[in-house]
Amino acid sequence: VNIPFGGGKGGIRCNPDELSDGELERLTRRYTAELLEILGPEQDVPAPDINTNERVMAWIMDTFSMHVRRTEPAVVTGKPLSIGGSRGRSQATGLGIAMIARRASEQFDINLKGARVAIQGFGKVGSVAAQFLQSMGAKIVAVSDISGGVFRDDGLPVEKLAEHVRHRRFLAEYVDADHLTNEELLTLDVDILIPAATENQITGENAGAIKARLILEGANGPTTPDADTILEKKGIIVVPDILANAGGVTVSYFEWVQNRMGFYWTRDEVHDRLETVMTQAFLDVIQMADRHGVSLRSAAYMVGLQRIVEVYQLRGIYA
Amino acid sequence: VNIPFGGGKGGIRCNPDELSDGELERLTRRYTAELLEILGPEQDVPAPDINTNERVMAWIMDTFSMHVRRTEPAVVTGKPLSIGGSRGRSQATGLGIAMIARRASEQFDINLKGARVAIQGFGKVGSVAAQFLQSMGAKIVAVSDISGGVFRDDGLPVEKLAEHVRHRRFLAEYVDADHLTNEELLTLDVDILIPAATENQITGENAGAIKARLILEGANGPTTPDADTILEKKGIIVVPDILANAGGVTVSYFEWVQNRMGFYWTRDEVHDRLETVMTQAFLDVIQMADRHGVSLRSAAYMVGLQRIVEVYQLRGIYA
Amino acid sequence: VNIPFGGGKGGIRCNPDELSDGELERLTRRYTAELLEILGPEQDVPAPDINTNERVMAWIMDTFSMHVRRTEPAVVTGKPLSIGGSRGRSQATGLGIAMIARRASEQFDINLKGARVAIQGFGKVGSVAAQFLQSMGAKIVAVSDISGGVFRDDGLPVEKLAEHVRHRRFLAEYVDADHLTNEELLTLDVDILIPAATENQITGENAGAIKARLILEGANGPTTPDADTILEKKGIIVVPDILANAGGVTVSYFEWVQNRMGFYWTRDEVHDRLETVMTQAFLDVIQMADRHGVSLRSAAYMVGLQRIVEVYQLRGIYA
Amino acid sequence: VNIPFGGGKGGIRCNPDELSDGELERLTRRYTAELLEILGPEQDVPAPDINTNERVMAWIMDTFSMHVRRTEPAVVTGKPLSIGGSRGRSQATGLGIAMIARRASEQFDINLKGARVAIQGFGKVGSVAAQFLQSMGAKIVAVSDISGGVFRDDGLPVEKLAEHVRHRRFLAEYVDADHLTNEELLTLDVDILIPAATENQITGENAGAIKARLILEGANGPTTPDADTILEKKGIIVVPDILANAGGVTVSYFEWVQNRMGFYWTRDEVHDRLETVMTQAFLDVIQMADRHGVSLRSAAYMVGLQRIVEVYQLRGIYA
Amino acid sequence: VNIPFGGGKGGIRCNPDELSDGELERLTRRYTAELLEILGPEQDVPAPDINTNERVMAWIMDTFSMHVRRTEPAVVTGKPLSIGGSRGRSQATGLGIAMIARRASEQFDINLKGARVAIQGFGKVGSVAAQFLQSMGAKIVAVSDISGGVFRDDGLPVEKLAEHVRHRRFLAEYVDADHLTNEELLTLDVDILIPAATENQITGENAGAIKARLILEGANGPTTPDADTILEKKGIIVVPDILANAGGVTVSYFEWVQNRMGFYWTRDEVHDRLETVMTQAFLDVIQMADRHGVSLRSAAYMVGLQRIVEVYQLRGIYA
Amino acid sequence: VNIPFGGGKGGIRCNPDELSDGELERLTRRYTAELLEILGPEQDVPAPDINTNERVMAWIMDTFSMHVRRTEPAVVTGKPLSIGGSRGRSQATGLGIAMIARRASEQFDINLKGARVAIQGFGKVGSVAAQFLQSMGAKIVAVSDISGGVFRDDGLPVEKLAEHVRHRRFLAEYVDADHLTNEELLTLDVDILIPAATENQITGENAGAIKARLILEGANGPTTPDADTILEKKGIIVVPDILANAGGVTVSYFEWVQNRMGFYWTRDEVHDRLETVMTQAFLDVIQMADRHGVSLRSAAYMVGLQRIVEVYQLRGIYA
Repeated sequence: VNIPFGGGKGGIRCNPDELSDGELERLTRRYTAELLEILGPEQDVPAPDINTNERVMAWIMDTFSMHVRRTEPAVVTGKPLSIGGSRGRSQATGLGIAMIARRASEQFDINLKGARVAIQGFGKVGSVAAQFLQSMGAKIVAVSDISGGVFRDDGLPVEKLAEHVRHRRFLAEYVDADHLTNEELLTLDVDILIPAATENQITGENAGAIKARLILEGANGPTTPDADTILEKKGIIVVPDILANAGGVTVSYFEWVQNRMGFYWTRDEVHDRLETVMTQAFLDVIQMADRHGVSLRSAAYMVGLQRIVEVYQLRGIYA
Repeated sequence: VNIPFGGGKGGIRCNPDELSDGELERLTRRYTAELLEILGPEQDVPAPDINTNERVMAWIMDTFSMHVRRTEPAVVTGKPLSIGGSRGRSQATGLGIAMIARRASEQFDINLKGARVAIQGFGKVGSVAAQFLQSMGAKIVAVSDISGGVFRDDGLPVEKLAEHVRHRRFLAEYVDADHLTNEELLTLDVDILIPAATENQITGENAGAIKARLILEGANGPTTPDADTILEKKGIIVVPDILANAGGVTVSYFEWVQNRMGFYWTRDEVHDRLETVMTQAFLDVIQMADRHGVSLRSAAYMVGLQRIVEVYQLRGIYA
Repeated sequence: VNIPFGGGKGGIRCNPDELSDGELERLTRRYTAELLEILGPEQDVPAPDINTNERVMAWIMDTFSMHVRRTEPAVVTGKPLSIGGSRGRSQATGLGIAMIARRASEQFDINLKGARVAIQGFGKVGSVAAQFLQSMGAKIVAVSDISGGVFRDDGLPVEKLAEHVRHRRFLAEYVDADHLTNEELLTLDVDILIPAATENQITGENAGAIKARLILEGANGPTTPDADTILEKKGIIVVPDILANAGGVTVSYFEWVQNRMGFYWTRDEVHDRLETVMTQAFLDVIQMADRHGVSLRSAAYMVGLQRIVEVYQLRGIYA
Repeated sequence: VNIPFGGGKGGIRCNPDELSDGELERLTRRYTAELLEILGPEQDVPAPDINTNERVMAWIMDTFSMHVRRTEPAVVTGKPLSIGGSRGRSQATGLGIAMIARRASEQFDINLKGARVAIQGFGKVGSVAAQFLQSMGAKIVAVSDISGGVFRDDGLPVEKLAEHVRHRRFLAEYVDADHLTNEELLTLDVDILIPAATENQITGENAGAIKARLILEGANGPTTPDADTILEKKGIIVVPDILANAGGVTVSYFEWVQNRMGFYWTRDEVHDRLETVMTQAFLDVIQMADRHGVSLRSAAYMVGLQRIVEVYQLRGIYA
Repeated sequence: VNIPFGGGKGGIRCNPDELSDGELERLTRRYTAELLEILGPEQDVPAPDINTNERVMAWIMDTFSMHVRRTEPAVVTGKPLSIGGSRGRSQATGLGIAMIARRASEQFDINLKGARVAIQGFGKVGSVAAQFLQSMGAKIVAVSDISGGVFRDDGLPVEKLAEHVRHRRFLAEYVDADHLTNEELLTLDVDILIPAATENQITGENAGAIKARLILEGANGPTTPDADTILEKKGIIVVPDILANAGGVTVSYFEWVQNRMGFYWTRDEVHDRLETVMTQAFLDVIQMADRHGVSLRSAAYMVGLQRIVEVYQLRGIYA
Repeated sequence: VNIPFGGGKGGIRCNPDELSDGELERLTRRYTAELLEILGPEQDVPAPDINTNERVMAWIMDTFSMHVRRTEPAVVTGKPLSIGGSRGRSQATGLGIAMIARRASEQFDINLKGARVAIQGFGKVGSVAAQFLQSMGAKIVAVSDISGGVFRDDGLPVEKLAEHVRHRRFLAEYVDADHLTNEELLTLDVDILIPAATENQITGENAGAIKARLILEGANGPTTPDADTILEKKGIIVVPDILANAGGVTVSYFEWVQNRMGFYWTRDEVHDRLETVMTQAFLDVIQMADRHGVSLRSAAYMVGLQRIVEVYQLRGIYA
C-alpha cells in the first residue's frame, strides 16, 4: 500500500498467560532495553501482534523514552489513545475492507447498493466491515463466528448482532435468524464473500462451489494456492489479503506520522487518509494486473517488488 | 484541552524596566545558556508571560539555536511571526472564548443571536472576544477597562471602541455611550458575562446580584470559591478559566507543531483547528459534569487529572 | 516567497559527460561524505541544478543516510518519487508561472479568458505553463524552442505541440502552424509575454518594440537592466524571475516538509499549497510596490531584504 | 591541592538504616536516573560520604552505564576495586597526613626520626597515619578513640593496636599501655599533634596548654577560630585540614584518571603520585605564607582562591 | 589476567584465499559498516585471529573512523604500528610465557639458570619464548616444528634456529643438531616443557611418560582432560593456557589504552607493564590454588569466575 | 617527529594591535563559534602562533567548552598552565635543540664538552638552548639579538646574559664582552652554529665562509636552498628545522595528551618524554640519510612522507 513500513517480527519465547503482570512488565522492559540501539522512530517501530497488546506497547514506549530522555511515542505503534495512539485504529482493518469492496465493486460492475454479502468471521475485522458495508448500501446476508453463522435472505440486523457479540455471546445463540455452518456460508449465493476468520478456508475442495463474484480476503491467507487456480478459472475476482486487510498497518503508519508531528488527526481525517491510501493501492494493483494480464494477487506482489527494486536501483550500494 | 503541554514557570528575579536593552538581552541569553540541558522541543518549551515578550522569546530561540548548531524555533513559543511564530496567535484567547461561548449557548439553550453580553476587560482578550461574539450575532451591551465601562442597551459599536482603545485612550473618555463602573458591569441584566480583566472580581459580596445565565472566565481566577458556591446555587453556569481561556496555550502548542513540521498554517487553518480543540474540550467537560453531577469547574479538573492518572497507569514506573 | 530555504551553490569541477556511471556515483558519494558535517535537514539541503539530476540526488541521500545510520530523505530535494520525492514537482515551475499570470491579470485588468500569450522556450517550464494557461482560458498564440517558434493567431494546439516535443522533435519541424524566430516572438502583439528560455533575451535593443502589457520572467534573468528601464517607461509590467519562477523551489521546500513528516501529499494538495504560497508572495510584492511606488522587481528584492533584516534585528548577534 | 575536582554535595533525605537493601538500591537508581543530564565524567562526579559506601557507588555507576549504553566507571569515584576503584584509596588520607608531616618536619626543623607524635582518633585516618609515621621513624606516643586513649613514653606498638581495633575492640580495653583521656592527649608534650577524630577539639580553652610544635589537622575543622589565634601567638604551626587531609580526594581524582585511561596504576604508583601532589601543594602553601606573612591556613585559602580567580580572568564570561 | 577485555568472536563465512584484495577490502568494510552500532572503543573491540591480519584491522579502523567522523584507532587492536598499533605486540605471547616460566620456576623451586627446556612449536610464540628463556639463563635443549624437532643436550643455538626458520626453512632441514619427533620431544628429560604448537598434544597415552616438572601451555588446549588427571597425580605442575599465553591479549589491551590516551609507550614500557600484569595474574592463581588445594587450571577458572560474580553482585541488575 | 599532529593554519585578517581587549575577545569567540563543527580534540586543535597568545587560546577553549557543555581543554594547545597548559612548554623548543645538539655531536664525533657554540637569536628559543647547552658542557662563545651580538672566546656567562635580556635590554648594551654583528657571528670559528633568529640568514653569499661543523636550524628556514648546496659540498652537517626545532610542537602534543587524560606530568616527565621523541626522530632521520645517501634535510622529508604514504596504503580509500 506504499507506506514506509516494512515487515519482520521478533519476540521473547514465553507464555504470557503464565506470567504475572509484574513479570510481564519487567520482561518487556528488559527486552526493550536490550534492543535500544536498533529501535527508534527512524529505525525499527514495533507494533502489537498476537499475545501483545496496548499495555505492552505502553511499556515499550516508556522504557525507550526513559533511556532517550524524552517522551518518544513514535518508537512503537498500537499505543493507547492517551499516550499517542491514533484515533480510528481499532476500526481500521474492517473499514479498509469496506473501502476496497466499494472500489472493487465499481471496477467489476457490481452494484454495491443491494449487493449481497457474506462474511466469515465476526470479530474486530468482520463486524466492522459488515457495519461499514451495510452503511454503504450492501445487504449483509450471512455472518459467522467460531460457533457457526446466521443467515437472513433480506439482510441481517448488523448492529444488533454486533451488540449481541459485544456481550460475549456466540452467534449460534442468536435467535432471530436462520443458522448455517461456516462451510455453508462460503458457498452461499452472494455477490461478495469476505473470509475474515482464519487461514486456509477456501480450498481446492470447496472452491468449485463458490458462487460469489468477488472475494475480499479479510483474514491472512484464507485461500489456498489450488483454490486460487480454480477461482481464477471460474472468473471469480480475489482481492488478496496484502491489499484487502492493509487498513490496520496503514493506520499504524498514520499513528507514527502523528507522533512525529506531535499533532493528532480527528477520526474523520484518519478515515479520509485511509481511503486515499487504500484507493491508490487498489488502482496500482488493478493497473498492474491489466498491463500484465495477471491475477490481482500476482499484481499486488509485482507492485511491491517493483518498488523495492526501484529503490535499490536508485540508491545503489555504498561501498 | 488535551494538548501535550504542561505547566510550571521559571524566571530571573529582576525588574526588566530598570534594565537596558543590552542588559536584558545578555541576561536572557545567559539564563538560556545555563538551562540548555533542560530546554528543548522535546523537553521544556518556554512561552512568554507578564514581563517577557516576543523579543525575549527571539533571544531565547537564537541562543538555543546557536548552541545546538541549527535553527530550532520549536524550543520556545510566542515568537514573532517572521522567525516561526504562528498566525492567529494574538487573537487566540479571545477567539477561544467566543468559540466556547457559542458552544455553551447551544448547550444551555441561550440563543447567541441577539444574546446580551457584558465583558469586563477590553484588552487583547476582551476586545477580541467582543468582536468575534458580535460577528456571531451577539449584542455586546457593556465593556470596561481600568478606567471604567461603557454601556449601550442596543449594543455597543465594538469595532469603533477597539479603534478608540488602539489609540491608547481609555474607555472612560469614549463619549458615544453611557458609562458605568466595573462593579456595575458585573451585575447587569445580561445573558452572558465575561470577566476578562483580572482575578477575584466575582466575590461572595456581588455574586448574589449577578443576573447573567452564563459566565465565561476570560481572566485567570476571576471568581472566588465562595462566589462559586453562590453562583452554583443560583443555577448560573460558570465555564472555568482553564477551559474558557485555553485558546492562547492551544495556539502556542500549534506554533510548536508548525515549527517541528517546518510548515506553517494559514490563519484560517489555525482557527479551524483551534475550534476543533476547544469544542472537544468543552464536550469532554460537559460529559464529565453530566456523568458525575458536578460543576463545570470540578469537571474540568477531573478531566485533567483523569488523563494524568491514565498515563501513569499505562506507562508505569521504570525502576 | 517566504519559505525557509536560502541560496548558495557548490559543486565539483568536472564534466559529467566524460564520467562513467560508476565514476559519477563514486564522485558524488565522496563529495557527500566530505561535506557530511555541513549537510543535513536542519543545515544545508542540496537540490539538483544543471548537470545533476534525480539519480545524483538519490546517491547523496543514500550516502548521507548510511553515515547517519537512518534513512534521511530530507537531506536533499529533487529526489525520485519512490524514495521521497514530492508529487507535482516536475510541473511546479510552469504551474507557478500560470498561477502568477492569473493573479497578475486580475491585478492589472487583463482578462485571462482569451488573453493572447507568447512563450519563449517550450521545455519543462514553458510547455507546462502553456498548458495550464490554456486551461485557464488563455490563447497561446506563439511558442518557441532553440530551433525557432510556431505561431497561430487563433491559438496553438498546445497539447499536440507538447506531444510533438515529447518525441524529441524540434518545433521548427512542426508543420501545422506559421513559423517565426525567437526574436520575432518577443515583439508579437500579445497581452502576456513569457520569456522562459534563457537569460538576456529582452535587451535595450528590442525592449522598445515589445507590445505585451505583462511580462512574466519564466527564465532566470531574461531581461537586461537597460531593457528594464525602457519597459518601465513604456508602462509594461514585469513580474521578476524571483517571483514568477519560484514554483520549483517552493515544491522543493514542500518535499522537505513531507520528508520530515514522513507523510506525503497528493498532487492536488501540493498544487493547492503552491497556490497559497505564490498568491501570498504576489500580494506581498504588489503591496510593497504600491507603498513605495517602485517596480515589481525592486519590490520583490525589498520584500526579501526586509525579511532578512527583521530576522537579524529580532534574533540579534550572540557573542 | 590543585586537582580538577570541586565541591558541592547532594542527596536524598532518608535514613538508610530504615531501608531494605532493595529499597536502597531502587532509591539510588531512581536518583541517579533523575540526575542523568548533570552527571558524567566531564560534568559531575559523585563520591561516597557518610551514609553512602562502595556499594551505593556501584549502583550509581551501573545505572548511569545502562543509560549511556556503555560501562562508564568514571562517573563516580569510591567504587569497589573490581569495577574500577583505585588501589591505595582506603589508605590515602592517612598516608597523605604522614607525607605532609614529613615535609612539614623538614620545613620547620623537626627531626622526624624519633619525633614524638600524638594522634587523636584511631580509625581509617588516624591508624593509617600512625603506621606510616612510625615507618618514617617517628615515635607514636599516644593515640585515642571514642573510648579514650593509650600512652607509652617509649612509643606505642602501632601495628598491635591496629590489630586490636580491627577486632572491633576499644582502645580503652587495651592493657599494655597507660591510659589517658582524649582531652589529656591534646596537651601532651609531643612534637607533632594530629587531631584526626572530629571537629572542634582544639578550642579557646585548651589551646593555651598545647605543647606540640606542629599540628596536622587530620579531621575536618578540629580547631576553632579562637584556638587558631592562640596557637598562632604561641608560634605553633597548624597545617590546615584542606591541605593535611586532602589525600582522600586526591586519590578519588586518581581513580577518575585511571577510569578515563582504562588503565590502572599499582599501589606504589598511586602512592608516588599522591606524594607528588601533596608535596607540591605543601610547597605552594608555604610559599604563599612566606610571601604574605600569614598562617598556613590563610595561605591555603589564598592559594585556592587565587587559582579560581586566575581561571575566571583567563577564560572570561561568554555572553 | 584481570584486564577489561572479554571474549566472543564473529566473522564472515568465506574463504579469504579465494577473494581478490578488492573483494576482501569491500567485504571487510561492509561487514564493519553493518556492525557499526555495536562496535566501538567502549563496546566491542575486534582483534585479528586466524585468516585476518593487520591489514584487515586497518580497513576496519578506517571504515569505522569514516563513519564516526574522526580517526578512532581504539575500535580495533592488532593494527599496524603506523596507525596506532602497540610496540612489542608481536613478541607479547612468547615473552609472556617466558615471564610466567620465570615466576613459576621460583615458585616451584626450579633454578631457571641452567634449567632444561623443551618447546613444541617454533613459530611466533615458541621461538620468541625460546629466545627470552635463553636470555634468562635457561638451556633450550629441544624445539620442533611441523617437520619434527631438533635436540642438543648442551643447549640449542636459539638465535641461529630462529634465523633458519625466518628463511622459511623447516627445522628438519637444520643440520647442526640431533633430530627427534614431536612426540619424542614431549617426553624428554627436561625441567620445563612448553607445548606451543597446537591442541591435544599431551594425552592420556603419553602423559604418563612425561618427565618435565613444569608444563607451560603456550598453545590453546594442548593438554586433554585425562592427561590433566595423570599429570596431577604425578605431581607435574601445569600452568594453563588462559594464564600462560595471555601475553597477546594483554598487549592488545595495552594497544587500546594507548589509542585512548593518544600516547604511545616504548617497547620497554610495554614489556614492563606486561610483566606487572602477568606476575600479578600468576600470584592470584597460585593464591587461589593454595587456598582451595586445587590445580592451577582450576584455580585460574575460579579466579576468572570469581571476578565476574563479584561484578554482578556489585552492579546488580537494572530492571 | 612522529606525533599525531599535522599542519595547516587559519586566522582572521585583522591587526590585533588596533583592537581593544573586548574586540579581540569577541572576535576570537565568534571565530571559534563559527568553526565549532571542525574544531575538537579529535579533529582540529589550534595552537598559538605570531599575534596570538595564551590568552587567546583561553578564549577559544572557553568558547568551545561552553558550546559542548563541558570543560574541554584538549581543543587547543598553548594554554596557560592554570587551565590545562603543559609544564615545560615555554622551554620546549630551546631544550629540543640542545637535545638534538647532543645527539648530533655524538653522531658526528664532536665532543660536546668544551665544544664552541655560536647562537644567532637570543629570545625564547636561543637563550634557552644556550643555557641547556652550557649545562651539557658546551662553551657558548657568541650570541646575538636584533641589536647585534656578543663574543667571548672563553665562553659567555649565559645566565647573566639571559638576566640582562630579561630586563628588556639589548645585547649591544652588554659591556662585559666583545661585540660583533649578526653577520660576523655566522662565520665564527665554532663547532656548532645555531641560527635561531629568523629566516634566510645563511645564504649563497655567506655559506662559503661558514666554519662550523654542525648547523642546527633553530629558526624556521634560516638556510636558503643555494646555501644548502654549498654547505653540503663543504661537508657541513645541517640538522633541518623540522627536526631541530620540533620541541615546541611536541610539547603541544604532550599538552593535548595530558588534557585528554585529565592528568598532568611534572616538568621532568615532560622533558624525559621530549627527549625520547627527539632522540627517536633524530635516529629515524640519520638512518634514512644513511640508507639513501642523502642530506639530513632530504632524509627528514623522506621520513615524513613515508609515514603518510604508509598510512594511506594501509587505510585505503573508503568509497
